Amino acid sequence: MVVVMHPQATEAQKEHVRETIRALGCTPRDVQGEEVTIICLIGNTRGLQPEQLEIIPGVDRVQRIQRPFKLVSREVQPSDSIIQVDGVEIGGHEVVVFAGPCSVESKKQLMETAHAVQKAGAKILRGGAFKPRTSPYSFQGLGIEGLKIMAEVKKETGLPVITEVMSPEMVPVVAEYADILQIGARNMQNYPLLMVVGKSHRPVMLKRGLSATIEEMLLAAEYVLAGGNHQVILCERGIRTFETWTRNTLDISAVPVLKRYSHLPVFIDPSQATGHAEYVSAVSCAAVAAGADGLIIEVHPNPEKALSDGEQSIRPEVFAELMPQLRAVAQAIGRTA
Amino acid sequence: MVVVMHPQATEAQKEHVRETIRALGCTPRDVQGEEVTIICLIGNTRGLQPEQLEIIPGVDRVQRIQRPFKLVSREVQPSDSIIQVDGVEIGGHEVVVFAGPCSVESKKQLMETAHAVQKAGAKILRGGAFKPRTSPYSFQGLGIEGLKIMAEVKKETGLPVITEVMSPEMVPVVAEYADILQIGARNMQNYPLLMVVGKSHRPVMLKRGLSATIEEMLLAAEYVLAGGNHQVILCERGIRTFETWTRNTLDISAVPVLKRYSHLPVFIDPSQATGHAEYVSAVSCAAVAAGADGLIIEVHPNPEKALSDGEQSIRPEVFAELMPQLRAVAQAIGRTA
Amino acid sequence: MVVVMHPQATEAQKEHVRETIRALGCTPRDVQGEEVTIICLIGNTRGLQPEQLEIIPGVDRVQRIQRPFKLVSREVQPSDSIIQVDGVEIGGHEVVVFAGPCSVESKKQLMETAHAVQKAGAKILRGGAFKPRTSPYSFQGLGIEGLKIMAEVKKETGLPVITEVMSPEMVPVVAEYADILQIGARNMQNYPLLMVVGKSHRPVMLKRGLSATIEEMLLAAEYVLAGGNHQVILCERGIRTFETWTRNTLDISAVPVLKRYSHLPVFIDPSQATGHAEYVSAVSCAAVAAGADGLIIEVHPNPEKALSDGEQSIRPEVFAELMPQLRAVAQAIGRTA
Amino acid sequence: MVVVMHPQATEAQKEHVRETIRALGCTPRDVQGEEVTIICLIGNTRGLQPEQLEIIPGVDRVQRIQRPFKLVSREVQPSDSIIQVDGVEIGGHEVVVFAGPCSVESKKQLMETAHAVQKAGAKILRGGAFKPRTSPYSFQGLGIEGLKIMAEVKKETGLPVITEVMSPEMVPVVAEYADILQIGARNMQNYPLLMVVGKSHRPVMLKRGLSATIEEMLLAAEYVLAGGNHQVILCERGIRTFETWTRNTLDISAVPVLKRYSHLPVFIDPSQATGHAEYVSAVSCAAVAAGADGLIIEVHPNPEKALSDGEQSIRPEVFAELMPQLRAVAQAIGRTA
Repeated sequence: MVVVMHPQATEAQKEHVRETIRALGCTPRDVQGEEVTIICLIGNTRGLQPEQLEIIPGVDRVQRIQRPFKLVSREVQPSDSIIQVDGVEIGGHEVVVFAGPCSVESKKQLMETAHAVQKAGAKILRGGAFKPRTSPYSFQGLGIEGLKIMAEVKKETGLPVITEVMSPEMVPVVAEYADILQIGARNMQNYPLLMVVGKSHRPVMLKRGLSATIEEMLLAAEYVLAGGNHQVILCERGIRTFETWTRNTLDISAVPVLKRYSHLPVFIDPSQATGHAEYVSAVSCAAVAAGADGLIIEVHPNPEKALSDGEQSIRPEVFAELMPQLRAVAQAIGRTA
Repeated sequence: MVVVMHPQATEAQKEHVRETIRALGCTPRDVQGEEVTIICLIGNTRGLQPEQLEIIPGVDRVQRIQRPFKLVSREVQPSDSIIQVDGVEIGGHEVVVFAGPCSVESKKQLMETAHAVQKAGAKILRGGAFKPRTSPYSFQGLGIEGLKIMAEVKKETGLPVITEVMSPEMVPVVAEYADILQIGARNMQNYPLLMVVGKSHRPVMLKRGLSATIEEMLLAAEYVLAGGNHQVILCERGIRTFETWTRNTLDISAVPVLKRYSHLPVFIDPSQATGHAEYVSAVSCAAVAAGADGLIIEVHPNPEKALSDGEQSIRPEVFAELMPQLRAVAQAIGRTA
Repeated sequence: MVVVMHPQATEAQKEHVRETIRALGCTPRDVQGEEVTIICLIGNTRGLQPEQLEIIPGVDRVQRIQRPFKLVSREVQPSDSIIQVDGVEIGGHEVVVFAGPCSVESKKQLMETAHAVQKAGAKILRGGAFKPRTSPYSFQGLGIEGLKIMAEVKKETGLPVITEVMSPEMVPVVAEYADILQIGARNMQNYPLLMVVGKSHRPVMLKRGLSATIEEMLLAAEYVLAGGNHQVILCERGIRTFETWTRNTLDISAVPVLKRYSHLPVFIDPSQATGHAEYVSAVSCAAVAAGADGLIIEVHPNPEKALSDGEQSIRPEVFAELMPQLRAVAQAIGRTA
Repeated sequence: MVVVMHPQATEAQKEHVRETIRALGCTPRDVQGEEVTIICLIGNTRGLQPEQLEIIPGVDRVQRIQRPFKLVSREVQPSDSIIQVDGVEIGGHEVVVFAGPCSVESKKQLMETAHAVQKAGAKILRGGAFKPRTSPYSFQGLGIEGLKIMAEVKKETGLPVITEVMSPEMVPVVAEYADILQIGARNMQNYPLLMVVGKSHRPVMLKRGLSATIEEMLLAAEYVLAGGNHQVILCERGIRTFETWTRNTLDISAVPVLKRYSHLPVFIDPSQATGHAEYVSAVSCAAVAAGADGLIIEVHPNPEKALSDGEQSIRPEVFAELMPQLRAVAQAIGRTA
């Protein structure tokens, strides 16, 4: 961490900064520039807030040097993390596709979708039982009933399942049915929830918050790893910007950025990102080309009748056409799918 | 809701749209424009998603007409909501100031701050016992111990207290100690939590999410009112933008916008919004001038030693100078403070 | 265009709206919903501002139905526009790569780069002679001298050249040397400049503004087409968001969105978008996979010595490795490169 | 400037950085932290790009320490700049209000507005002759004819006038008629234009770009001062965010931030910021309370008939009610208006 002093800062103010640095357990070191003096903190600054020193008179601003995350970083683990789910390898050479409906609506709907996506090459079945909805008047999911349907469909198809968990006290029951726990974008910084899934034995897919920076996303993952659960999948699903012709703006560059700094697998959700079924295929190909380790795609047998997010769900026949394209793109960059 | 058809949409596609509208319980009505046909939905569309119809072939896009919220709106209740907390009237003629430290750190720290802010004119004491922190390595609050300290300080000073609650299962215990429950920005769309505080008898301060639109904020409040709790205070605390010289960007226009559409009291948090103590006074005056019903300000007797958010906490003596200014601005626009 | 009335709007207010609509040359048509009345405008609303009617008492808001652009749209021209530049076909089956340094620094530098990128497969040489720089103290480009160097290099290599023009009065001289005129992101809404290039016979690459919506980008292109010049290439180069680990946020979904609504060729600038050389290859592959018609990539023989944007320029040897990858991705989605 | 090395950077890589720093005319100084080494640049780094060194292998990132602007800063001139325009003092103790229509439409319209705003207390008349419009099909202003009308109205009322100039070659003619030259938001980074107004003897109002950071705004002003023209007024007019219920998001905190770092007068444009007449009064009061030196407000005698921006123009009678409120708020914070 580096404290930048005002050009007119007095020696007494600088000494005040040095003392505060010592009180925080670090060693101060001055560097005198042409116009400005900076005072560096030598020591572990990971738990400190950059702003903590800004209040001191004579300080212009404070900048972080040491990255605030650790366990998720390539410095701690240079090689890629690979997560095993019932024989499916996530984060390895093969690009893995998760697919299924936004919400579980009925056994018939889920079974039909599961068979279709499995046949086309999906390896994990997605489906929502507890749904976070912007309006209290919208369909909120089937709840436990939805989880039971997922279990039945898993039993018949053999597909492992992923579903969202929305509050700490629901983690045990959801973990009983789900192979992977999903933390939704709105809960990326729900720290009580992150702490509880950090104690779970189930892999966790952590979705990026609507306005979360990449650093904040890695810090949210750090919460889970710090709890003891190292099986975390990062998922970029679009961020909020001024553009309204897509539901969110997919930050495609986040793929190489996350792969550079972290050993965790990186997924893309093209359905949430675009919000429109007709853009899902193009964006899915882009995600694989950018180096994503996998995709999570909304597929619904009858999107017009979907109880949630129909507009961004593709039909099983579109998904069946997309999979060979994804394989071709994966091969073009030296991977499989 | 209005369905905008593609200029080349066929009659069969239009009929498909009309049938779907009827299946949703509404009546379709066509309007033929010069280049484009729109099909209007007559009926209650509040629980529908605008995107639900976008998946139908021939549809260009769908636009919402009816506002998706109801209970929070001026249409349901034209007059301002006034919330009573131990004799303090929130949302009335007087601008009310909440003040106190970001985190409760010790009884001494909180008592000292409470006495100082009370003397200067604050009516409610703020303090965090459970703290959402971006990094797992930062101070996370004193927890229950912090709540107990707040209770002791309240007993001595008579100041009602507000504190944050972060998960559904903690609502009962926090509601035992706190006079107002705060839902933090990161939890604005934590729906299980909103549902539980909707069943509480305590007033709720709902902070705007970092990237929440005003409409989403009103819908989050609608969750609480729909649960039966009508005592909700809305709080704008800065949104996330590209500007980095302040911690967030205070959306000052949200004050007149919220007052126009909703009967709920509107507060501003100048500390979170700016992230820098030296901008707090100017922004507080602006908030009162814009018509805010109150402010929630971070005050710490020794900001450099604060365990969280010291950089945005003002000292008691600065707060004591600010209060008369706020009163003068309030009078300038015909209110008291 | 649709005028949404307040639920409490009076008949006199509605009549006021109808009269204003008639005065604007359109026909009003009411649709009475369950809670709200809307008044539709029948006629050409392309030149009207949606907000123009919002001032009328009793109006809640106004929404646009007809798209405000025309000449750039697929409705006017369903088939893809193909632009010919010295035998290079832009917007056709082949993905075309433009490459070269950010700034022209010397004949040696440009010649060396040109030979290298041409050998690897680039079809157009980029280079900046007039440089928009955030700071007045940064290198501002070689100016006319730079244009002359480009002409010499073109003569030797046969590579057509693209360079930026920054003000209306410079268009004639730049058009003398350049095969394609580039309008930079900061000038996307410099209307006097758009009008002048609209009268030029040179193709124009229009870069998306830092905070321009897709609709605004298409309207900026509409200025050029309305001037008579139909040879416009749209280029997405990243938009400004809260994320700071990349220079901008590449809006990859803009590719299928623009291809859906417009017949104009769509390019991606991975260098400006990411701002970091190490992310350029991943993002370039993604752009081709998403369906971009071409790329414009910064290549510099010695990025550390570059007078501008060195951090985002890749070396010729990296470019030479990237081209075969781009070809493989293009083939995977059924194109060539 | 500070170069942050990767934790695994080699000594050879560090030496490479040091050599590059020396080649740039600065002196390198190492600081060895617990995990990371930083290399500081001692010398004038104002013209350097922080990213210039990021390309070097082993570098993680580069951070700026010295502020990139100089002439606009309080370090060069600690006291406030005061600009004199025909006896009106801008940037002094009195808050100054500019008012008038968005566009000059006729002599009658401008004269009527001028008399009304002058009577209510406006000191400068605004009016657009050249209008930047998003759509080529919208009204583009009266041009020279509009300038002549402004001159006539000025002659009759004695009110100095401000109007926008959109391209370098138009500066001489606009400067002939206008007392203050306005650079619009879309042209904030139109550097050829900034350079030409930097040579003008007329004061310049520089509006913040839609997605310009405060630092970029100060650098744009630096261009004008570096050209020799020190009479610059900064104007915050709302930035682009995800919020759509207002036209832009007014960054009210920019007022104290700009006043802290720069000696230039700071204005607010509440009309452009909110885009809705009904929010203009509340936001104007907020701006004065936040410490703005002035306001520029759109006033139109008949907003429904306005050829541009009618929805955000207030009527003369509303303006007449607003002025005493602004005076009261100014007095509350110890100023006049």
